[in-house]
Amino acid sequence: MIIGAGVLGVTAAYHIKSNNPAKSVLLVDRFSDVSQGNTARSNAMFRNTFTSRDNQLLANSTIDFYIDLQEKSKIDIGIRKTGYLWLMSEEQLSRNARHIEKMEKRGIETKVFGGGQVKDRIPSLCTDFAPTDEDASLMNLDPVDGGVFGAKCGRLDPSKLSKFYLERFLNLGGKTSFNTSAQELLLEPKIPLDIEGEPFVWQDASITGASLTGDLQGNFRAGRVLLACGAWTNEILWPAGIDGHVKAKKRQLFKIASNEKLAGLLRCPGFNNLGDLPFLILPKSGCFAKAIPESREFWVGCDDNLGREYIDIPARDLDEYKAEPQYYERNLHAILRKYLPQFENARPDRMWAGLYSYNTLDYLPFVFEEGGIIVIGGDSGSGIMKADSLGRIADALYREGDGAEATLFSGERYLVKKLGFASRDVEREEWVI
Amino acid sequence: MIIGAGVLGVTAAYHIKSNNPAKSVLLVDRFSDVSQGNTARSNAMFRNTFTSRDNQLLANSTIDFYIDLQEKSKIDIGIRKTGYLWLMSEEQLSRNARHIEKMEKRGIETKVFGGGQVKDRIPSLCTDFAPTDEDASLMNLDPVDGGVFGAKCGRLDPSKLSKFYLERFLNLGGKTSFNTSAQELLLEPKIPLDIEGEPFVWQDASITGASLTGDLQGNFRAGRVLLACGAWTNEILWPAGIDGHVKAKKRQLFKIASNEKLAGLLRCPGFNNLGDLPFLILPKSGCFAKAIPESREFWVGCDDNLGREYIDIPARDLDEYKAEPQYYERNLHAILRKYLPQFENARPDRMWAGLYSYNTLDYLPFVFEEGGIIVIGGDSGSGIMKADSLGRIADALYREGDGAEATLFSGERYLVKKLGFASRDVEREEWVI
Repeated sequence: MIIGAGVLGVTAAYHIKSNNPAKSVLLVDRFSDVSQGNTARSNAMFRNTFTSRDNQLLANSTIDFYIDLQEKSKIDIGIRKTGYLWLMSEEQLSRNARHIEKMEKRGIETKVFGGGQVKDRIPSLCTDFAPTDEDASLMNLDPVDGGVFGAKCGRLDPSKLSKFYLERFLNLGGKTSFNTSAQELLLEPKIPLDIEGEPFVWQDASITGASLTGDLQGNFRAGRVLLACGAWTNEILWPAGIDGHVKAKKRQLFKIASNEKLAGLLRCPGFNNLGDLPFLILPKSGCFAKAIPESREFWVGCDDNLGREYIDIPARDLDEYKAEPQYYERNLHAILRKYLPQFENARPDRMWAGLYSYNTLDYLPFVFEEGGIIVIGGDSGSGIMKADSLGRIADALYREGDGAEATLFSGERYLVKKLGFASRDVEREEWVI
Repeated sequence: MIIGAGVLGVTAAYHIKSNNPAKSVLLVDRFSDVSQGNTARSNAMFRNTFTSRDNQLLANSTIDFYIDLQEKSKIDIGIRKTGYLWLMSEEQLSRNARHIEKMEKRGIETKVFGGGQVKDRIPSLCTDFAPTDEDASLMNLDPVDGGVFGAKCGRLDPSKLSKFYLERFLNLGGKTSFNTSAQELLLEPKIPLDIEGEPFVWQDASITGASLTGDLQGNFRAGRVLLACGAWTNEILWPAGIDGHVKAKKRQLFKIASNEKLAGLLRCPGFNNLGDLPFLILPKSGCFAKAIPESREFWVGCDDNLGREYIDIPARDLDEYKAEPQYYERNLHAILRKYLPQFENARPDRMWAGLYSYNTLDYLPFVFEEGGIIVIGGDSGSGIMKADSLGRIADALYREGDGAEATLFSGERYLVKKLGFASRDVEREEWVI
């Protein structure tokens, strides 16, 4: 049984069913379809530009699979290889030079544009601020002296992607039960004595299933239980005395419909084959703009780390987490309009929020087994771009335990226990701007 | 300002004041004195028997300081060097042989007793169970084939220890404010603009103080804030968007008054200079017995990991966490009476519970700085035995940042950032039985 049919749950379900065809695999989710929770609220970008070897392997192989799917197998998952463009000051460029070198050495394709080259391609970009610009000096805005471009990066459609995995899973004979909510895990002794209060400390016990409500009701037992509940991982695991290792934080996205002024920004030839504006990251607070020319809109956002509270046990109803108009106004828009003046009067016509599931230890995902349950999560906002690899790793753990090596789509091997906690061994990410 | 005057807060306060005599240091706590929270509810044991080099350094040096205090400086902190005795089956002994070897190599004194030697010294111990013993086979109880004895281990009085640090801190001119509760941290911009909603994402901001209630009231600002709130770390940090990295779990202790039958067990010569029974750990579920001959009592407990829930934000009132009579009865006593039959009719006349602050990443403590606040915690139940070292490390971080090396009481140097999260580098503990 797999609890949680977000992008991580559905990829794991597919890979497990695919490699264990004789096993009955049931995928349950409290929503009415796959990826209706935080996956649906995601910015849905992908990139391979990481310095951590683990991030590189997990993302690169996943992206290769997605591209192969769309380009060779002609299954449309909405991929647009727009690239990412990090705009930086001289100081930021020089601070990041060794990271770029490290990526290049490991085959992660990046290109550094000079300030002039960026300005040629995005003429409306404000690359420098006059000393008399009070706003800019108050906000301590850095100039744009260049940009780092990641080529194997872009956007995709998480709904199409999730449906692809679901369909394959169903074709293999996998079963689903939507509108089904896991309430609590069943922790039961291996040899039950039928005495009240079991399991006792001296009994060998493990997670044997979960109590479900909704379309499927009652105590449901399975040979193995896999949990992929994202922000709700602790809610399910903590009562059983197992730590879920995630911390939830609200993240917001604001959609701006393109107007006459903004239209020119949607397409900026010279970066990618599409002629589209790459996913643009400004030199302040991770403020970004995602151009979607086909629907003539931009999605914008930025990172509020300090001051944005961690949520212990998030509400089940994601509508509790609303995007805040004043967050757009005073935080995000204040930056955006300075670098891209055509956003001056831009106001969002739609806004939404979702929850990141942070693994605050090293911000890399985890796949571990404890008390008989396999847990996958902690993707810290990059679940979609690593999902295929994580699904394969969950399957290897399921089949062979944490001493196993998973084979990624790229053919590379990945030692499962590196992503666990008992022997965690991952390279920290340094590409944090 | 140091928030939290448990054993970690008061040692940090002392070391910081001691090495920065010109600084005003204020120690605040919501209780009316030092160490009235979980420190007071602790089992108050200490040991240096760890395989992790970091645990060894932190504990060994702390214990050296405590012993020096009592033996050389003649300051009574209630130390009794009873030793720890882990009773083990053949299989457990053999599984742990390499750990014992590792400890010996690093100068951690251990001694392995054979089954006969243990039985000679604790004649009432049941070292084997007949195949007809239904209870024992149901509970899957291991025989006692020997014991591993840690010599530089024992018990102390956490109240006396904490009062020693407090007195020294006060003598140096440190200030305290008890009955003072920290409600929330103040997160403020370096350059305030006096606009509602500050700090904005584009402002440089940090923790500048806390809002206090009780004997000291209002927004209190300090040059630096250090947090040592144990189980309540997340409650204070999460609203500011900083992770506290602890998870609380209830732990219980049961006091058994000695009767005629039990009296013989309080003293078992042949292990330590006191002639007392060492702190005894049975081969099942970490079940232990602590003999206190001077007050003719035993404290007993055991570990319920799986099935004992993690608590997200613990109640401020520790009385919410009660020891459970049926936990004693069905879990702990069930084991105890099998190995030590004189506990057959023993019932606790006092019982209490407290909260462990687990760092579920590696179960070692942390000392880190984020957003301008220094955080110390995650001791996972071994705060007292590492407190002096952790206080010195917090001081080094305060004075020189996380690139600093702290000098421990033993004279050994410890790189501060090893205990942080950004560059965490600790050896995992393997001595977990």
